[in-house]
Amino acid sequence: FLDRTLEPEIKEIITNVEKHFGNMCQRFAEYVCSTAKLRDKADNLVREIGLYADTETSNLKKGMRQFAGHLAMIEDYRQARVERLKAKVIGPLKSYGSVVKHTRKDLKAIQSVRDREAKHMTRLEKTIQKNPLDWQIIFQAKSELQRATMDATRTTKQLEETIEDFEKHKIQDLKKIFSEFVEVEMSFHAKALESYTLAFQSIQSVDEEENLEVIRDSLHPPNNN
Amino acid sequence: FLDRTLEPEIKEIITNVEKHFGNMCQRFAEYVCSTAKLRDKADNLVREIGLYADTETSNLKKGMRQFAGHLAMIEDYRQARVERLKAKVIGPLKSYGSVVKHTRKDLKAIQSVRDREAKHMTRLEKTIQKNPLDWQIIFQAKSELQRATMDATRTTKQLEETIEDFEKHKIQDLKKIFSEFVEVEMSFHAKALESYTLAFQSIQSVDEEENLEVIRDSLHPPNNN
Repeated sequence: FLDRTLEPEIKEIITNVEKHFGNMCQRFAEYVCSTAKLRDKADNLVREIGLYADTETSNLKKGMRQFAGHLAMIEDYRQARVERLKAKVIGPLKSYGSVVKHTRKDLKAIQSVRDREAKHMTRLEKTIQKNPLDWQIIFQAKSELQRATMDATRTTKQLEETIEDFEKHKIQDLKKIFSEFVEVEMSFHAKALESYTLAFQSIQSVDEEENLEVIRDSLHPPNNN
Repeated sequence: FLDRTLEPEIKEIITNVEKHFGNMCQRFAEYVCSTAKLRDKADNLVREIGLYADTETSNLKKGMRQFAGHLAMIEDYRQARVERLKAKVIGPLKSYGSVVKHTRKDLKAIQSVRDREAKHMTRLEKTIQKNPLDWQIIFQAKSELQRATMDATRTTKQLEETIEDFEKHKIQDLKKIFSEFVEVEMSFHAKALESYTLAFQSIQSVDEEENLEVIRDSLHPPNNN
């Protein structure tokens, strides 16, 4: 059966997961927070391009406004990304604290059953020492120990299941969280590529000659010629 | 010829470009600075995933390390993006200050020639008032005015060219700067998509069953069975 000396090792496994899931949660949260700040900066940039566009004329104004519009779309996608990362990455990582807590409670229950077995073992030894001939008392202590040993064996099985379950869920959850992270990120990058393609077309479509005509007209109004 | 009352309008055009190119430069710089901060946060995240991977076993460790490696690549791309945006967007926008300064200097030179014409006009009027019969002095003043008018006409032509040149370059530069911005951004998003695809494969390749075997073996070392 399960080696008793493995208990510190099992505790170490759980503490390690608690520590690193906690750290990853914090690092992901900082990454998402920084992404939200970048969105703010990009929003300011989009606004400034729009303000400038309004002071320009004809198709430069139109091109710049369209350009700013496509950039604004990307920031909407970035906002959606921030919200999805919070829900699909930070949330699950945060809730890992309760998984760890639950497993620790299971381990404690198992520990107390095992402690009870050890206590009955000591009691039997003392009984034999004190009353080496009182077979009735010795028999009772022996049967109590037997029952405690049976309980301990059963909980040892539970301990194995608990730790295997913990490990299994950990791997599944890690794969799920990391995969969701990648999917959210990829979805954003793909949409950003689309919007940038449109933004590129908007700015390329600005006709320099048409704009110069407008400037020339404003320098030589018809009634001045 | 060019209406004299247009001069404030031309100054307004130049001041407007100076203001908005300056503002856009600042907003782009903040965007790039914020992107660099996001890279720092992502670097921390990558480091944490690596630290955690080192405490794990077998193919979970391997999968997580590969995953972190692909994420690290994305941050290298983000760093390259920061440097390219500085060179291709912020640099050219910043250098627009000197374009504006140069154009202002040209305008000032033109203005002084026009002022000289006005001065000669006043001088001629005064000469006629004071010495209405001194044809020699009047003739000299007239010919000086004529020369000043010729200079002014020539510089008016220059003014038209200067402002048209300024407008032409402004549109060309705007198109170039915005297009370069989009190209740098698209290149980053495309590379990020590639790396995330590989990262996804890395994490999906983690075999849960193999990891559970390792855990089972560590709970039941061979010499214990």
